[in-house]
Amino acid sequence: MPRTRHTAETYIAGIREGDRVMLSQAITLVESARPADRELSNEIIRTLLPETGNSYRVGITGVPGVGKSTFIDAFGTLLCDAGKQVAVLAIDPSSNRTKGSILGDKTRMERLSMNPAAYVRPSPTGGSLGGVARKTRESLLLCEAAGYDIILVETVGVGQSETAVHDMVDMFLLLMLANAGDELQGIKKGIMEMVDMVLINKADGNFAQKARAAKAVYAQALRLFPLQPSGWRPPVMTCSALHNLGLEDIWEKMEAYRDQMQEGPYWQQRRSNQALTWMHDTIRHQLEDMFFSHPEVSKTQAQLETEIGELKISPIQAAEKLLEVWQSAKG
Amino acid sequence: MPRTRHTAETYIAGIREGDRVMLSQAITLVESARPADRELSNEIIRTLLPETGNSYRVGITGVPGVGKSTFIDAFGTLLCDAGKQVAVLAIDPSSNRTKGSILGDKTRMERLSMNPAAYVRPSPTGGSLGGVARKTRESLLLCEAAGYDIILVETVGVGQSETAVHDMVDMFLLLMLANAGDELQGIKKGIMEMVDMVLINKADGNFAQKARAAKAVYAQALRLFPLQPSGWRPPVMTCSALHNLGLEDIWEKMEAYRDQMQEGPYWQQRRSNQALTWMHDTIRHQLEDMFFSHPEVSKTQAQLETEIGELKISPIQAAEKLLEVWQSAKG
Repeated sequence: MPRTRHTAETYIAGIREGDRVMLSQAITLVESARPADRELSNEIIRTLLPETGNSYRVGITGVPGVGKSTFIDAFGTLLCDAGKQVAVLAIDPSSNRTKGSILGDKTRMERLSMNPAAYVRPSPTGGSLGGVARKTRESLLLCEAAGYDIILVETVGVGQSETAVHDMVDMFLLLMLANAGDELQGIKKGIMEMVDMVLINKADGNFAQKARAAKAVYAQALRLFPLQPSGWRPPVMTCSALHNLGLEDIWEKMEAYRDQMQEGPYWQQRRSNQALTWMHDTIRHQLEDMFFSHPEVSKTQAQLETEIGELKISPIQAAEKLLEVWQSAKG
Repeated sequence: MPRTRHTAETYIAGIREGDRVMLSQAITLVESARPADRELSNEIIRTLLPETGNSYRVGITGVPGVGKSTFIDAFGTLLCDAGKQVAVLAIDPSSNRTKGSILGDKTRMERLSMNPAAYVRPSPTGGSLGGVARKTRESLLLCEAAGYDIILVETVGVGQSETAVHDMVDMFLLLMLANAGDELQGIKKGIMEMVDMVLINKADGNFAQKARAAKAVYAQALRLFPLQPSGWRPPVMTCSALHNLGLEDIWEKMEAYRDQMQEGPYWQQRRSNQALTWMHDTIRHQLEDMFFSHPEVSKTQAQLETEIGELKISPIQAAEKLLEVWQSAKG
């Protein structure tokens, strides 16, 4: 982490020129807990905000072992070869890596991280999901200002991190494996209803046949979900990231999706809704943090939760009591 | 609405004796917006709380036209005939009926509302979902204290009302029709993942065949959702509420569900989790109400939302600004 700080103007000029070192350092400011860094990053973002919004924001989720890193490595490389500039971000609220351990993500995406048209940023370390998600969202804006065309945001699927990613992207991809018979392979509640496209990875060799069968099963399952307002029906596609199979078709379908959304009001609507959701969520998290971290509240909370368990007080009465404690402790 | 109020002791004694007039009047207190009524109902609930928890709480949802009222009427009557005491509550945040228009719900459930073993309470009128849900949850506790064995909570599916009902019941039923080919018949996102049982209603005459086909489709679809921690796999059953077909099998399955949950820790765990969720949700709603209804906040909010749309400020920065406005207006 750089100890020296530049002026906001220096960062802004650097990002505008696509200088990765400046971009990285600006993202470090975004991720920093220091108020002075926060102020500086706020100024940078405020200035660059009108220059954001031009990328295709793509979220990627899937259980561990499904091959997310391999997919991003191969797919990102394909996009770079097609002349795109690709940035990779991640949300991992479970991450306990020491600061600056960039190696973790970079070695996972060996080819892509060496590509001059790509920028691979490791997950911000530690903090609550709300904090980690905010950092990733603001980093995304900086990558856009730096000229990246496609931003891939990976989530490891811990906690509510899929929702956080879903709420910042234009398209949300779910990677699965071919053994559809094994139920949902640990996919969490709600995920299937968020996805814009399902990819069955590792569809090669002996698994090609299985993947086709799984495709049919998932396609039928997706018919049981309500259609999106745009009328888009999430397609199910197969690929093999390891053997570079099917990736071009996927990009073609993603372009079709973007075209269809941009023809109608849906693209812009989704982004506007996301922006308001982000404002609202940020406020809610802050209010709750403020409330539950209040020493008087947390002291009383444990006691009340016990009383709820013993049917001595109803949850609603307990809530009202806690709110009273908070109000009078503040006043 | 009764203008006279009894003492808390009178209500409590009446409810303990299963006096419906007292129960109704106590629920009216729960639904009242008057602080004095709220205080009185709080006292009643606090006293009766240790006598609650003994009913089987069942939530019922489904799109309009699926036959929810007919189902509750027939199913509730069957339960009464089997010697059970049945209470029916509802959550309808869209309800704009004038106060006391009990007729609406009662005439919809003609047989059941005449049954001496049943108590049919109309939806509480008006208010936010949070408010309406709180009223229903507290009414549920009063019904339990009055000795009802089974409490059916109906939701019309407006807004997040299914989640509210799901969070207060032991079993959540989804009523569907046999035309499974018509996608999800307007079922909202997230519902399929909440259900403990799917019922395909109107499975009679020409539709019996169709219902069986739909049953197979839904059963397969439900396999694509993660299993509940208890290992319960939501079954799909067919019935005809109008012709009294299949209702006994449904009740048998519901008893099997209850037995299975109570053998493990799941029954009590679900209720404990629900109680904490209720406390937390109540606090969150109050905090947000407090925040967004603050005149300084709402004045600034509209302006900031416009600026977000014009990319003049990021949603997170807007949130921070609003929080500042609130803090300094309070201080």
